[in-house]
Amino acid sequence: MKGFAMLKIGATGWIEKEIPACGPLDAICKPLALAPCTSDVHTVWAGAIGDRRDMILGHEAVGEVVEVGALVKDFKPGDKVLISAITPDWNAYASQEGYSMHSGGMLAGWKFSNFKDGVFAEYFHVNDADGNLAHLPENMDLGAACMIADMVPTGFHGVELADIQYGDNVAVIGIGPVGLMSVAAAAIRGAANIYAVGSRKNCADLALEFGATHIVNYRGGDIVEQILDLNHGPVDKIVVAGGNNDTFDQAIRMLKAGGKIGNVNYLGDGDYVKIPRVEWGCGMGHKQILGGLMPGGRLRSEKLARLVMTGRIHPERLITHTFRGLENVEPALMLMKDKPRDLIKPLVLMD
Amino acid sequence: MKGFAMLKIGATGWIEKEIPACGPLDAICKPLALAPCTSDVHTVWAGAIGDRRDMILGHEAVGEVVEVGALVKDFKPGDKVLISAITPDWNAYASQEGYSMHSGGMLAGWKFSNFKDGVFAEYFHVNDADGNLAHLPENMDLGAACMIADMVPTGFHGVELADIQYGDNVAVIGIGPVGLMSVAAAAIRGAANIYAVGSRKNCADLALEFGATHIVNYRGGDIVEQILDLNHGPVDKIVVAGGNNDTFDQAIRMLKAGGKIGNVNYLGDGDYVKIPRVEWGCGMGHKQILGGLMPGGRLRSEKLARLVMTGRIHPERLITHTFRGLENVEPALMLMKDKPRDLIKPLVLMD
Amino acid sequence: MKGFAMLKIGATGWIEKEIPACGPLDAICKPLALAPCTSDVHTVWAGAIGDRRDMILGHEAVGEVVEVGALVKDFKPGDKVLISAITPDWNAYASQEGYSMHSGGMLAGWKFSNFKDGVFAEYFHVNDADGNLAHLPENMDLGAACMIADMVPTGFHGVELADIQYGDNVAVIGIGPVGLMSVAAAAIRGAANIYAVGSRKNCADLALEFGATHIVNYRGGDIVEQILDLNHGPVDKIVVAGGNNDTFDQAIRMLKAGGKIGNVNYLGDGDYVKIPRVEWGCGMGHKQILGGLMPGGRLRSEKLARLVMTGRIHPERLITHTFRGLENVEPALMLMKDKPRDLIKPLVLMD
Amino acid sequence: MKGFAMLKIGATGWIEKEIPACGPLDAICKPLALAPCTSDVHTVWAGAIGDRRDMILGHEAVGEVVEVGALVKDFKPGDKVLISAITPDWNAYASQEGYSMHSGGMLAGWKFSNFKDGVFAEYFHVNDADGNLAHLPENMDLGAACMIADMVPTGFHGVELADIQYGDNVAVIGIGPVGLMSVAAAAIRGAANIYAVGSRKNCADLALEFGATHIVNYRGGDIVEQILDLNHGPVDKIVVAGGNNDTFDQAIRMLKAGGKIGNVNYLGDGDYVKIPRVEWGCGMGHKQILGGLMPGGRLRSEKLARLVMTGRIHPERLITHTFRGLENVEPALMLMKDKPRDLIKPLVLMD
Repeated sequence: MKGFAMLKIGATGWIEKEIPACGPLDAICKPLALAPCTSDVHTVWAGAIGDRRDMILGHEAVGEVVEVGALVKDFKPGDKVLISAITPDWNAYASQEGYSMHSGGMLAGWKFSNFKDGVFAEYFHVNDADGNLAHLPENMDLGAACMIADMVPTGFHGVELADIQYGDNVAVIGIGPVGLMSVAAAAIRGAANIYAVGSRKNCADLALEFGATHIVNYRGGDIVEQILDLNHGPVDKIVVAGGNNDTFDQAIRMLKAGGKIGNVNYLGDGDYVKIPRVEWGCGMGHKQILGGLMPGGRLRSEKLARLVMTGRIHPERLITHTFRGLENVEPALMLMKDKPRDLIKPLVLMD
Repeated sequence: MKGFAMLKIGATGWIEKEIPACGPLDAICKPLALAPCTSDVHTVWAGAIGDRRDMILGHEAVGEVVEVGALVKDFKPGDKVLISAITPDWNAYASQEGYSMHSGGMLAGWKFSNFKDGVFAEYFHVNDADGNLAHLPENMDLGAACMIADMVPTGFHGVELADIQYGDNVAVIGIGPVGLMSVAAAAIRGAANIYAVGSRKNCADLALEFGATHIVNYRGGDIVEQILDLNHGPVDKIVVAGGNNDTFDQAIRMLKAGGKIGNVNYLGDGDYVKIPRVEWGCGMGHKQILGGLMPGGRLRSEKLARLVMTGRIHPERLITHTFRGLENVEPALMLMKDKPRDLIKPLVLMD
Repeated sequence: MKGFAMLKIGATGWIEKEIPACGPLDAICKPLALAPCTSDVHTVWAGAIGDRRDMILGHEAVGEVVEVGALVKDFKPGDKVLISAITPDWNAYASQEGYSMHSGGMLAGWKFSNFKDGVFAEYFHVNDADGNLAHLPENMDLGAACMIADMVPTGFHGVELADIQYGDNVAVIGIGPVGLMSVAAAAIRGAANIYAVGSRKNCADLALEFGATHIVNYRGGDIVEQILDLNHGPVDKIVVAGGNNDTFDQAIRMLKAGGKIGNVNYLGDGDYVKIPRVEWGCGMGHKQILGGLMPGGRLRSEKLARLVMTGRIHPERLITHTFRGLENVEPALMLMKDKPRDLIKPLVLMD
Repeated sequence: MKGFAMLKIGATGWIEKEIPACGPLDAICKPLALAPCTSDVHTVWAGAIGDRRDMILGHEAVGEVVEVGALVKDFKPGDKVLISAITPDWNAYASQEGYSMHSGGMLAGWKFSNFKDGVFAEYFHVNDADGNLAHLPENMDLGAACMIADMVPTGFHGVELADIQYGDNVAVIGIGPVGLMSVAAAAIRGAANIYAVGSRKNCADLALEFGATHIVNYRGGDIVEQILDLNHGPVDKIVVAGGNNDTFDQAIRMLKAGGKIGNVNYLGDGDYVKIPRVEWGCGMGHKQILGGLMPGGRLRSEKLARLVMTGRIHPERLITHTFRGLENVEPALMLMKDKPRDLIKPLVLMD
């Protein structure tokens, strides 16, 4: 089969590989829709997860089952499926404790295009099909379905970590596709004012559509001052869905005592995240710092898909560019790399 | 001053009383808007809280401060204010433990028209003004503001008790004004399918507008069977905002293992709430039963008011009948007693 | 192989069966120590889980692995192992949501001597060995180890459900072996006064040794009155580890508003658990009712075993009668059925 | 009256002041026992809270009420009382949200020897007597009682923040008096192995007595390596009760994914707390960082005192030096400043 791969740090290309073998609990799928992710860009061009050779890229897909292992109970060839980007080992210690994304080690629930070949191929392998696939709801938009793999659960997890409660005033830092889903998630979790921090017009427009009440643009001055001013004081909760190590410095400065920061931004470089001592209450301000990889798996995909099917969220609105044909994952990925100003998220449909 | 009072069980009337005295932490207010509550009906005609003589009724109001005590810091005469129906003693044991509604004893955070005169009067007394009043946001609709006293926080607390999470399928049993706010609360807490149980058309219509996905009417057959059928199995969470002791029997039968019931319905008679043993997993099914009086106080009022001001909820849509003049709290209360089919909630504006 | 079985409701006996087959994720074990449980008595003589024919009994064991499936990674023949009485399917919906004991349906994480043959046999089958076995710590007492199967995690779960916090005053109703472990669990979870309700001297003595501060005997009068009197008012939390449907009536009457009841007692008969309406705050008292089957699995067993190995708990103190040889599971079970006054828990060692 | 005061940064001395006035909710007390705290040392000689002139020091006391305000209900002159070091305004926003220690602003629940005169005087003022005093239990040791003011609640809060669960392996970094109480708190919260990090013999001995299973001394090598080695991998939870900004670097490196750090160490200098990016899972490892000032108030004091009275904890064991007479708060404070190797905590009794 052919697949679009990271050849080494800084280089991509199409390669030929054997169709992956299917273990007794597993499934082999072919893609129906694919989407590249900023993580793919970081993996290839920033070497964010270290050296990988000839590893097929991609972890966002909707698929069709072509083979299942002997112990798989709920899926069969021909089934159309949602596939979580995070596919835990459900019997691992971390899973038994509620952190399935860290099953097998910190972040090791993320397997596609990390520890094994990803989904940008004619076929791909899914471990624990009963635990990690979900049936595609009838009539579900394939674009929305593809966003259930990563953009929706990651954006939503930021809000879960920030523990938003009714009437909270919330800042969402970063309104790329993940941050936009955090805005949507905050709005349907009970946030009141949502200060969405970003500078691109199409993202800002969609943030307002998804429930943001204010757009805060760094071009308008220091974002901490802007938000403290708009909110007449520090906010209750903050979702970090963009920025870098220094973003936490800003976040702590605009957060009230007893507030929480939920981070879902992958911090790709630098040695230390810096927490400003005095504004952090000298360690005693109950400004809680939480960051975590999204929870994956079947139940999560099904529950998020329900939110789409009941019209609570509209992740298909993220998609600004649609391609057709597997061969177009390459230009789609390049689009993510180049980030033209009209881009939020590309989608590649198989036919 | 004059006030509309419960004279004794089964009898109401206008009485004259002294304007209440203002302690050092307290405020005296006059009403700007009032609303009668089903609780007032139960208090008078069902004797739900026992005998009371010449007690002024009412606990839902928007007001204007006319006097404050010497220790009050944040309010002054002339301020327009939201007034929580529940006005805790914030330094009590129960408050220090997070259950301020039970400060001074179980349910004793509820003082108006229970342990002291209520708000259906020319003037009324609010204990701990800094802790229990909130400034009325500029331009806030008085009807929405009056619903912040009780209907909104009570409806919302049902959802908090049921601990609704993203993508949960939820039944809301009872869609009077409280249940309708539970529907709205479930929708902005992340529920997917919301099965609203009720039989009155105007309530059903508003439930759909507030976010219900299905209306379940007992006239269409057993509600448990209907919901199990619509949901293809038991629901994740249930809010009980109506019914009686037997409602829990139904709720347990339609709830999944690991699910939660949040009750905010005042159970007015009968000796026992009955939990069906087998369907409750013989005590081992993790079907969690939680019921509680709404949290009150200033912060709560402010946070819920923010949800109105940011357009997240529209409690003014509950109001089907509007009166003008204090004297009309009497016909407004009678309307609550008689429950004509077009009634959801009456409001009485002072001018 | 031979096993000691429930032949039908009311009858037990030794039977011959094939050694169970080992699936790719599973293990076959032989027992090193066994213990009968009151549940076995209820299963056979009360028909608590319905009719079962020729089903081998028992779910409390320490064992040695004799065979593992091809996909098992962490165990091999010859390994000595702790075996949880509850052996979930870890990839099931309920497990992904944190209720692994209900994987496959309410209570269906309980498989031994319920849906499949139990452990009172020469060999027994364990599903998902990596998820449900744990290595026996070196030098661990076999009696303590056998209590890790059910008595310890069940008793501890009552305290987890009751959510005991530092300084809480707690009632533990029922001080059989499970309730005694609840007493121990309450003491190392931060309870202050622990009112242990029971009437048998050896249990009372052990309760005091495990951390109870008071013994409350129903022979001394109504237990509700006794506890309200000793505690100068209602208690903070209650663990129910004995009694029947009416026990909840007592519990609600002695519990403060905002308190929690954690039930781990299997309620074997009667139609309804009765919650007294008025004392439950008319549904609004935040007296929270939680009941659930113990969580099982590998991590749980390991963490509880750590508490034994660090001397935090002493579950071996439950064992009042020790037998040797598989054939003695029969008299050990009869002892549980007959409950002589000097019995707390019997143990059967294999050699 | 006379009091022992900070005259300015770096200087202390005895001063004369008016006996403080008693507001309607307040109490005036005289001390029965006092203890200096490391915070007093930081306040005076490190200028940790900025410049203060002629401010009476001290926030750890047991007292006797000499006057109460007109609205005080539960206390009267002559009552012996526990006094929390943190005395919140209970009706403030932060208190209504569960963070009473931040009522009036971050850390502003701490008033004694911070925003007003402290307890090292003939008389001192307590705001909200009903909310912040607690009756001294009969026969309670005055040394233990004085530790309830700060050492016990602070040490315990570290364990609450770290959210220790049954069987967790825990590191406690720092075993001065606060860290020692964290060790005791961890042991009665269900920790299994407790790695206590410290180098002083008397502290190490007491840590073992309080429940530590291992002492880790930095003189024996890198503490991270030592703990990873002893624990065969990262620990579940960490309490930080000593060290500095760099301690979080160490803590993150020895903590598992999904683990929690609870900090109760006041970070007195430096610009940034540094979180190592890679070991923090690039922001996605669910290594949760929580730090907060102790909760104070009456209920907290009562609940912790119950733990003393039921023999669950023995905070009087902290006291290594006992003085008699108010005038001896000066040498007692100097002892805290000089930290002789045999010191854990001094106590000053009034007679």
